[in-house]
Amino acid sequence: MFKVNENYLKLPGSYLFSTIGKKVNAYSAAHPDKKIIRLGIGDVTQPLAPAIIDALHSAVEEMGKAETFHGYAPDLGYEFLRNAIAENDYKARGCDIAADEIFISDGAKCDSGNIQEIFSLDNKIAVCDPVYPVYVDSNVMAGRTGTYDAQKETWSDVIYMPCIADHDFAPQLPEETPDLIYLCFPNNPTGAAITKAQLQEWVDYANRVGAVILYDAAYEAYISEADVPHSIYECDGARSCAIELRSFSKNAGFTGVRLGFTVVPKDLKCGDVMLHSLWARRHGTKYNGAPYIVQKAGEAVYSKEGREQLKEQVAYYMKNAHYIYSGLKEAGYTVSGGVNAPYIWLKTPDHMTSWEFFDYLLENVNVVGTPGSGFGPSGEGYFRLTAFGSYENTVEAVDRIKAAKL
Amino acid sequence: MFKVNENYLKLPGSYLFSTIGKKVNAYSAAHPDKKIIRLGIGDVTQPLAPAIIDALHSAVEEMGKAETFHGYAPDLGYEFLRNAIAENDYKARGCDIAADEIFISDGAKCDSGNIQEIFSLDNKIAVCDPVYPVYVDSNVMAGRTGTYDAQKETWSDVIYMPCIADHDFAPQLPEETPDLIYLCFPNNPTGAAITKAQLQEWVDYANRVGAVILYDAAYEAYISEADVPHSIYECDGARSCAIELRSFSKNAGFTGVRLGFTVVPKDLKCGDVMLHSLWARRHGTKYNGAPYIVQKAGEAVYSKEGREQLKEQVAYYMKNAHYIYSGLKEAGYTVSGGVNAPYIWLKTPDHMTSWEFFDYLLENVNVVGTPGSGFGPSGEGYFRLTAFGSYENTVEAVDRIKAAKL
Repeated sequence: MFKVNENYLKLPGSYLFSTIGKKVNAYSAAHPDKKIIRLGIGDVTQPLAPAIIDALHSAVEEMGKAETFHGYAPDLGYEFLRNAIAENDYKARGCDIAADEIFISDGAKCDSGNIQEIFSLDNKIAVCDPVYPVYVDSNVMAGRTGTYDAQKETWSDVIYMPCIADHDFAPQLPEETPDLIYLCFPNNPTGAAITKAQLQEWVDYANRVGAVILYDAAYEAYISEADVPHSIYECDGARSCAIELRSFSKNAGFTGVRLGFTVVPKDLKCGDVMLHSLWARRHGTKYNGAPYIVQKAGEAVYSKEGREQLKEQVAYYMKNAHYIYSGLKEAGYTVSGGVNAPYIWLKTPDHMTSWEFFDYLLENVNVVGTPGSGFGPSGEGYFRLTAFGSYENTVEAVDRIKAAKL
Repeated sequence: MFKVNENYLKLPGSYLFSTIGKKVNAYSAAHPDKKIIRLGIGDVTQPLAPAIIDALHSAVEEMGKAETFHGYAPDLGYEFLRNAIAENDYKARGCDIAADEIFISDGAKCDSGNIQEIFSLDNKIAVCDPVYPVYVDSNVMAGRTGTYDAQKETWSDVIYMPCIADHDFAPQLPEETPDLIYLCFPNNPTGAAITKAQLQEWVDYANRVGAVILYDAAYEAYISEADVPHSIYECDGARSCAIELRSFSKNAGFTGVRLGFTVVPKDLKCGDVMLHSLWARRHGTKYNGAPYIVQKAGEAVYSKEGREQLKEQVAYYMKNAHYIYSGLKEAGYTVSGGVNAPYIWLKTPDHMTSWEFFDYLLENVNVVGTPGSGFGPSGEGYFRLTAFGSYENTVEAVDRIKAAKL
């Protein structure tokens, strides 16, 4: 008789954003007249930039003719895209990353869920608290975590690194030594960033203790301050300890287009074994490449027109971020983030729990955000708003919150 | 110090098609004047049908306007596509499958690699021999197989079901009871099909012993005989023992577009646990949906125009299959497959091994096929040719083989 993967049964409740979706749908069904504004999930709202639309149409044309039709893509992605990434995201920033160290995928969520597979089940992970749920849940599913403490909302075999206001929401080096360290900067959900000097400390630490840093840089396009690194490979020694995950979802609005990539430097080894070979083997066996038309759209992100248009798109969202940040501050809220990231992290008023504040906003001003506690115990008492709405909706949502004067 | 997943290190050599690619590239580099014809990997060559090109262009247009832009897709896929599948692939064939039992994905290769994750590591798998390598390799990576016997080319904890000429390349019920049974019909690589009555025996067996059948029906569009089932759900009782994997790669030429789906009926349970819930959890946590434009292209596959155009496309490839089958037969080869599948399975002449015949064809007639032994020990002495080339190339390849008269 077959049996299921028991680790799945350990997972408490459903994925955070599914729960939010259900609550919002229930409210919406009961109050069909209310205009709900969603500043919750990190989904973009601006249409694809013209340069990307042109590239998509042109690639679709190619697929309609036998001479230019494209079947299975190369396992690791088309060279035209890998070259554009190596050139623009790495060489241009002084990072020593070659095109053949870049693996194209259908997004950073998949990669950040799958990357743990190439490591031993004995390895101990360290995560920020609060944290993007996929890092932890994918390790739970694999059986790399112990038992769940429902009261503390933590797993027994996971090292949590609290990111609290006293340290500007940056994690501190953990006391217990981890094998795998998940870092995400600019951070989801807090919107916090760290300087190159701070990140260098993590790289030095990882090299010292023999840990691998899984560095999620999905929000690098939102960095506005000069001393904040765009890639972990700006730090010395990162090639021997860091894997970097990148997304086109937030810099180019590809949430519904699906494209991302992961960098595994060939210097990253366990004894003689290159992690690059293992990830290549996983790609070759369990993945079949991103669509040709989508990879062509990715190439257009790096064209002159594409870059100009996307700079404007990022600026549009950051104008939202600024409006949320300053509006809530005026209204007396304690607010952070929003400078190098499209996320605003606010303290809930009057000692409300995160979910109490979620319900309060949904019911009283019809604004949807994300409860900080959904990202981990240190997120309790906090709340995430995103800058990915339309400017009009963002202004209306903030003005409603201000008017409610909790 | 971090450690790698040791199971990856057990895998012998590289993925079959990577090895073939390297051999062909080496030959091609040494003989740049030779015209190599590839009838090896199952990649299609005909352009996307006009109805699909139209749907893609129109979806791209939508993505360029704020009012019709689509961000993150629903976890399990858009309803328009799930409804079209439920209606056309199931209800129309008398199968009781609901739209919410269908999970849209980026292809059957990913799904067939990932599906094992929701099962216990203790479960024992049974596979056909020869077999599509992904079924076995993904279980090796997870640690569900024992040790590899390099001489026998088999894993110690895997039940192999030889598919030999004496039984028309159909597997027999195994002596040892498996927990998970991988079946693929019409079969890759042998091109064999089984009747509905034969498949019913497998369904009855699985229900009796408490096993799950992972049924890969990627080639169902090529079925030409009336008693060959298109879906396992045509069999009584399949809802409580079978998961079906489907692809748009071969019926609609989507190898470079990437779209597939998996059906997990809600009746399929281990105790109280629905496998449907586990697969939904995996999708929600480690996947982020197929691109909107690709799902719209999938919808067009079921339109009136799309169906007509794709029927012609399948007929085009089956004309190739017929040419290969009859041409090789005339030349004195022992041939099977090619009637309900785009694959021709031939016995190598003169007791050559599969790789010897691969080298022979590559070097003497510049035709690339796939060595049967790459699919498992019972594939030794066999060779796979695919019908996915252009008609002109297929004719030329077959005529070259005939002329060589080995």
